[in-house]
Order: sequence, then C-alpha cells, then structure tokens
Amino acid sequence: MTTEKTDRSNLIPFSSRLREGRALAQDVWSIFNAANLPADCINLGQGYMNFAPPKWVTQGAEEALQSVAPNHYSHPKGRIRLREALSNFYSPRFGRKLDVDSEILVTSGQYSVFTAFLEQGDEVIMFEPFFDQYLPSVTFNGGKPVYVPLHPPSKDKAHPSSGDWTIDIKEVRAAITPRTKIIIVNTPHNPVGKVFTRKELEDIAAVAEEFNLLVMSDEVYDCLVFDNNEHVRIANLPGMWDRTVTVGSAGKAFAATGWRVGWLIGPPSILTPTLAATTRIVFCTNSPLQEAAACGLEQAEERKFFETQRDEYAERRAILTNVFDELGMVYSMPEGTYFVLLDISGVQFPEDYPFPPSVLGRGRDFRPCWFIALEVGVSTIPVSEFYCEEHANIGEAYARFAFCKDVDTLKRAADRLKNLKKYLK
Amino acid sequence: MTTEKTDRSNLIPFSSRLREGRALAQDVWSIFNAANLPADCINLGQGYMNFAPPKWVTQGAEEALQSVAPNHYSHPKGRIRLREALSNFYSPRFGRKLDVDSEILVTSGQYSVFTAFLEQGDEVIMFEPFFDQYLPSVTFNGGKPVYVPLHPPSKDKAHPSSGDWTIDIKEVRAAITPRTKIIIVNTPHNPVGKVFTRKELEDIAAVAEEFNLLVMSDEVYDCLVFDNNEHVRIANLPGMWDRTVTVGSAGKAFAATGWRVGWLIGPPSILTPTLAATTRIVFCTNSPLQEAAACGLEQAEERKFFETQRDEYAERRAILTNVFDELGMVYSMPEGTYFVLLDISGVQFPEDYPFPPSVLGRGRDFRPCWFIALEVGVSTIPVSEFYCEEHANIGEAYARFAFCKDVDTLKRAADRLKNLKKYLK
Ligand SMILES: Cc1ncc(COP(=O)(O)O)c(C=O)c1O
Ligand SMILES: Cc1ncc(COP(=O)(O)O)c(C=O)c1O
Repeated sequence: MTTEKTDRSNLIPFSSRLREGRALAQDVWSIFNAANLPADCINLGQGYMNFAPPKWVTQGAEEALQSVAPNHYSHPKGRIRLREALSNFYSPRFGRKLDVDSEILVTSGQYSVFTAFLEQGDEVIMFEPFFDQYLPSVTFNGGKPVYVPLHPPSKDKAHPSSGDWTIDIKEVRAAITPRTKIIIVNTPHNPVGKVFTRKELEDIAAVAEEFNLLVMSDEVYDCLVFDNNEHVRIANLPGMWDRTVTVGSAGKAFAATGWRVGWLIGPPSILTPTLAATTRIVFCTNSPLQEAAACGLEQAEERKFFETQRDEYAERRAILTNVFDELGMVYSMPEGTYFVLLDISGVQFPEDYPFPPSVLGRGRDFRPCWFIALEVGVSTIPVSEFYCEEHANIGEAYARFAFCKDVDTLKRAADRLKNLKKYLK
Repeated sequence: MTTEKTDRSNLIPFSSRLREGRALAQDVWSIFNAANLPADCINLGQGYMNFAPPKWVTQGAEEALQSVAPNHYSHPKGRIRLREALSNFYSPRFGRKLDVDSEILVTSGQYSVFTAFLEQGDEVIMFEPFFDQYLPSVTFNGGKPVYVPLHPPSKDKAHPSSGDWTIDIKEVRAAITPRTKIIIVNTPHNPVGKVFTRKELEDIAAVAEEFNLLVMSDEVYDCLVFDNNEHVRIANLPGMWDRTVTVGSAGKAFAATGWRVGWLIGPPSILTPTLAATTRIVFCTNSPLQEAAACGLEQAEERKFFETQRDEYAERRAILTNVFDELGMVYSMPEGTYFVLLDISGVQFPEDYPFPPSVLGRGRDFRPCWFIALEVGVSTIPVSEFYCEEHANIGEAYARFAFCKDVDTLKRAADRLKNLKKYLK
C-alpha cells in the first residue's frame, strides 16, 4: 500500500470563481469552531440547536425508512405529501390557494434561484449584514453583489431593538443600475433579528416594481417572531406575488438543521426555471426527511407547535438579555430569529493577548469574540463576517449570540457571561 | 383569499444557461414517467429500485433520528463516522490509506467539481452515450461539452457484450484543444453497462497526463460488476491519483437512491476547491442518512453484502436477457450496472400510431419505446437521450432496460416482453 505523497498541489488550477466568492478564505465558522476552542466552551456561535426535533416529527422519517418509495428518488419538485402539507400550511398565510404543481418547490437551498436567473454580470442587491451564503450563491452564478447597509441604532439608545436597525430606501434606489436583477430580503433577519415593517417592505416593493426586479425573500425564521410583532410577507403586498420567491426551511421550523429540507413558494414564472436548475444541481431533495417535514407540517397547527416553540425561544432569549441588562451592556432586542447582537466595543482585552493568526488577520471584532470564548468560556460569532470587506468596520462593534440551545445550557452561559463585568470599561 | 392569476410569465427573464444545459426541454424522465403511462405499465425506465434498503442499514438512520447531533448540520466534509467508514472500506481498494480530512468528501453530487474547476469556456470531454446530468453540470458552470462516441458493436455480432462498445483513443486525442480541462470517465457505464478495460483506461490516462487534464471518474456502479470482470480504477494507474476524483453513491450501493448521499475520493488539490464549492452550494449533506450509509459500509464486508447483492443482480439480469434470447433479439450483455441495452431497430409499429407530440418531436427511438410501453406494458428509456442532438441517431437503435427491480416484477415484465414477438420483422 503506497502512501507516498508528491506535492503537486495546484496541478490543475481551480476556478477563479472560488476567489470571487470568498469561498477559499478560512470562514468564521471554522475559526470559531468547537475543534479550535477549549473543550468546555459553551457554543453560542453557529446557529444549530443542541436539542433534537420533536419525536412526532422524526416519526415520519422512521416510517419512511421502513417503506419502499420514500427511500428512492422523489419527484424533483418534492414529494407530493410534503407539497400538499406545504400548500395546506402556507395557503392561508399567503392569502391564496398554493398550487402543489407549480407554486411550491421543495429544495436544498436558495442557490438554484440564482442559477436560474442570473446572467453573467447581473447585479444582486443585498442588505448588510447578510447571511454569508448569499455571496457565493451570487458570484458562483456570474452575478455581482451590490451592498446596501442596515443602519445600526443610534449610540444614545440605551435599549435599542432590532427594529432600530433601519434601511434608507434612497440608498436602495441609488444602488440600482440597468444590470440589477434580484434583490434579497431577509425577514426575520440573521444576524440582526429585525422583522421588516410593512412600510419598509412596501418601499422595497415599490423599487422592485419600478425596476422590474425579482425579490428573493428569505423567511426561514418566519416561525420565530416575538412580542406580537407582525411578520409581513413581501409576496403578499399588492402586485408582488408575481416577482417574489419566498424561502422556508424545515431545519429552522423543526429543530432539524441537518435534514437539508427547504422549500420555495412563488409563481410558476419563477419556480419553473428554478426547478430546471435544481433538478440539474442536486436532482432532488432526500426523500425520508421530506416525509418527516410533511409529518411536522400536517400536525403543527393542531398541536400549537409553532406557538409553543416561539414561547420557548422567548424564554431562551430572556436568559441572555437579562444577563446583558445586569451587565449594563447594550444589545439589540431581537424581534425575531434566535440571534441577539451584543455591542462588544466596551470589552477590554490585553493588546498582547495571544490571539492565533487566523483571528489577528480578520476584523477587529474577531479579537473580543476570541477573548470572550477563551476567558469567559462562551463562543459567539463576530459580526464583521456578515459584511463585505469594505464595510466590515460597521459590524466590528457586535458579537452574535445564538440562543437555539436548551435552557440549561443558556443558564450556564449566562452565569459565565457575568464574568464579563471585569473586562468592561 | 385571492386566486386571481395574471399572466405575467417571463416577466423576469430566466438565465440563458438553462437553454444551453437543455434544462428546460421536457426530459425523457418526465415523458416516460409513470404518470403519463398506463397505470399497470411495468416501469423498467428510471434507475431506482422497487425494493427497500437493507434493514440493518436503515437502522443507522433510525438511531440518528433519535439522537441530537445527527439531526443537525454535519461538517461540510461529511460526518466523521461516514468518512472513517469510507476510508476503511476504500483504502484497500485504492491501495493507499485515504486521509479522512483531505482525501474524502461526502457530497450530494458531482456538480460541485465542475463549479470548483471550470473557467468560462473550459472544455469537458465526455463519452457518448452519457449520463444526462453531466451536460448541465458542465454548461451551468460555464463549460463547453465535447463529445467522443463509444462505438456500438458490429451488427454481425449475434451476442455482443457491453465490452464491444469501444473507444477510439485517436478520437479522444483529436478532441483535445488548449481549453480542455476535464475528461469524464464512467465505469461501469450507464447506459451501456460497459466496464472499461485496463488498456482503455491506460490510454485515457496517458492523454490526461499529456494534456494535464482532471479526470472525473464516475464509479457509482462499482459494486455491480458481473462475471469476474475486473473493475479498474483509473485513480490507481501510475501517476493518476493526483489528477483523478472518483465518485461513489450510497444510493446505488444500498438501494437507497432517495437518500442523496454520495462521496468523492481524491487528492487534496482536487477536494479542497470542491469542498469550497459544495459548502457554498448545499452547505452539507443531510446528516441522518450519512449515519445510515456509515452503518452500511461498516458492516458490508462482514455480511458479504456486496457479493450477495451482485449475485442477486446477476439473477435479475438473466431474467431479461433470457427473454431477449428467446425472442432472438440482440442486446449488449452488461458487464456491470443494472442496465441492459436492447437493439429495438427491428420492432415494427404502425406509422400512424397515436404517439403524443412529446414523443413525435424526439429521436426515432422514442416511438418504439412508447409503443412497447403502451402495447406490451413495459416502459424503458430511449437511448438517443444520452447523446448530444447531433449524434442522437447513433442511440436510436437502442432501448435501456433497468433491472433494479425485484425478481417478481422482472418475471412479469419478461412474460409481457414475449409479446414483442409479433412486432418483430
Ligand atoms: C437567513 C438564513 N437563510 C437561510 C439559512 C439556511 O437555512 P438551511 O439550514 O435550511 O439551509 C440560514 C441558516 O442559518 C439563515 O440564517
Ligand atoms: C452514471 C451515473 N452517475 C451518477 C448517478 C447519480 O447517482 P445519485 O443518485 O447518487 O446522484 C447516476 C444515477 O443514475 C448514474 O447513472
């Protein structure tokens, strides 16, 4: 058995698109990965749960595994049982009967929307901070990202809300060129927690109509909206159905991020090309876990599952925000999602602290986040990662805490966070 | 609730790449879909099984569903348990200890290899007939397909084998240009059933070395090689490890096409860029079914699973080939895979038979295949679909029969196929 290794790396050059998409840079997820941190560090970094999906949901997969067809290829549109469950669940939410054949598409991501619609050089507007996967989805498909910032709350605000992160619609307008094709909206918003208001969405809709843009509305956190805030769907605004594709995810809905089952809802003019693309990229989404997602949606209403889950998340949120209040630290109270942004600009750490090179080479916020992980024992994600390089400094004041963890873990994290006191100015 | 539909289709134009990738044409799978055929038609068309994966394999997924971590995001490289199982299983087959961190990548398809390596205008050589997904994988990523035919057996051969489909290495050489970057090899081959010989692979390897090409070796049927034929891996030929990525699939290995768990094996210089691409396309492969695949690979040797499965498939193959022999029809005896090509050029049907427009608009072989499905009650796939438009006529003599069905179904199909007699010249 030969294990000889000849160093012929880069023998065959990889595509330049990997560089454009920042895809080869060491990403924040691998720097702040459990493997690089002390074993007992509490992970409030990456947004996955440390609890299992409900048993009555996974049961759908267990039954599927014991039968024949649900172990084999699904229709590329998705299994009919799941499409019917989606139609029943979402039709009232979209105020229209959603057609299972042409207006619902089960997918493994929003990537295929960009494959289906972008021409080389087309521009895509996204608000900063943005979910990091949007960037390569755009650039890999020949598109060009154009950034419009969300403006952080004024520094005078003692108790800002995620709603105090605002858009300036004039900046959106100014970003439009003849090549603008898509605008990405994300509500509730990762990492800010903002739930866009009707007025904000109306303003965006008016721009989309005026310049004939496709709107990709990423609403994967639609089941996590707190405090009676209203989740407005841009697809439901007058005239917007025809140009909007709405994204959902079983991972977020049922605490099953590893199932890789998501869905798109929109008009046939958007879903037909997207189906053509996704069929050629992944062929279809895995079948057994589609059955589980169907099982979940079929029973969710009767079990008041989403109401209960939202209340549980509100309790989790309070564990973190209470300790931040105690510390007198400023954070943006999230209206939705399971993330909260904490202003860490006041955290003091020794300039000569032994930061690893992967941390030193990045945004300034990587340092306090690293310091907090090592000294306090709670890992988070520095928010500069959610900005383009040019604007990374806007994000540098914040760390993102994920509260999709069980109450016990969050309480232990809160206890540790009290130790931040000694590092505050 | 509004259900009003305004016809604003093509409001926002889809990408031209969909046309280049033939992605919007109605594909053969939807024309010869169960939904369009008589309800009692026996489906030997699409290549999925009508039986379930082994219980001792699905059990891995059932256990995963009942725990926490395997319901959540996997490492984009794949779950460590599966990578270790793959290393243990494949290291002896590749004659080298496969490193779980850098030489094995769990994926949901070969698409990301093309994303990772193609530059706009790069050329990819593929042998015709070809697995239809290759074409859009190339064109969606800016590549240009270049076709080199497999030459069908001579018409004088009464009992040809899939091995009588041959390549002419001079044609491969002639197809090379300064833009050639990748060559796709598929052994055992869908739809021909051919297992490439060592000599053929050595010839291809020499060309790949000479012109510095990346070889994508699609070996998803490596567990289905009959009659003591030798499955040679091109990655194992001298000097080839560094430029070859080998593709495998749990769907084919464990009768679970709907699980969408596959893997790539190759050097870090190929897998690192491919990982960067796949992370940005699907993030990771679903977790519970990775556990199942791991479970399968861990136990396969001890249970002699692949040997037994191969023998079962050989029995299935015989059911079809026996009836073709009885009918005196010519087919290529497959050395591998679960497909057999039958020469249908002698099947006579009325010129005015009521073929649907979707069939009339396509290769001539769509007609006998449709006729056989409706009159004999067995559906198959016309082979012209596996050729580019220009060369479709080479495929028009053949129908592809899939024998990944239980013995009972195949016997019923064989009984029906006897009725072909009356339509033969
Ligand atoms: C805004 C946003 N969109 C999409 C996703 C992806 O969700 P999924 O895990 O279903 O692919 C995430 C996951 O973090 C997200 O935060
Ligand atoms: C040659 C070949 N490669 C790849 C695949 C895809 O396999 P999977 O279902 O694992 O994506 C197939 C499936 O038919 C195939 O025939």
